Amino acid sequence: MSLLDYFKTSKTNSAKLAKERLQILVAHERSARNQPSYLPELQQELLKVIRKYVKVNQEDISVIFESDDQQETLELNIVLPEHSQT
Amino acid sequence: MSLLDYFKTSKTNSAKLAKERLQILVAHERSARNQPSYLPELQQELLKVIRKYVKVNQEDISVIFESDDQQETLELNIVLPEHSQT
Repeated sequence: MSLLDYFKTSKTNSAKLAKERLQILVAHERSARNQPSYLPELQQELLKVIRKYVKVNQEDISVIFESDDQQETLELNIVLPEHSQT
Repeated sequence: MSLLDYFKTSKTNSAKLAKERLQILVAHERSARNQPSYLPELQQELLKVIRKYVKVNQEDISVIFESDDQQETLELNIVLPEHSQT
């Protein structure tokens, strides 16, 4: 399954809302367990970059952070306001 | 299927290599077709941010950009050098 397919299947419900959305996923596959995680810090930087392109309200961002012993994933879901292009 | 599951299924082969990897996916679901895309520019900025945290060689980055009339997806696959933490 390609990534585009993944997004297509997972967006079925949201498409009905006709909202514009931006989704950012980061997966860090680790070879060693004892490394400190930089994903929380990276997340803040990513949001800063996103805000250069689109106007984002804090309440329209949802963050999901998951980790197991092999990898960490960070998922940012952002609902964009209409005419969000700055 | 959760995002963590998606990464788990798609990484089966790479895990055998025991390489450390970072994967970043961006999906922009558009409500209007006539907007200019900012994903290529965003891609450059994301790489700049990533480089603050890990040392990345240009040849270890692969980029896949896909788009259809409803959304664009950007996929960055980065193979990290060992002991990549800066």
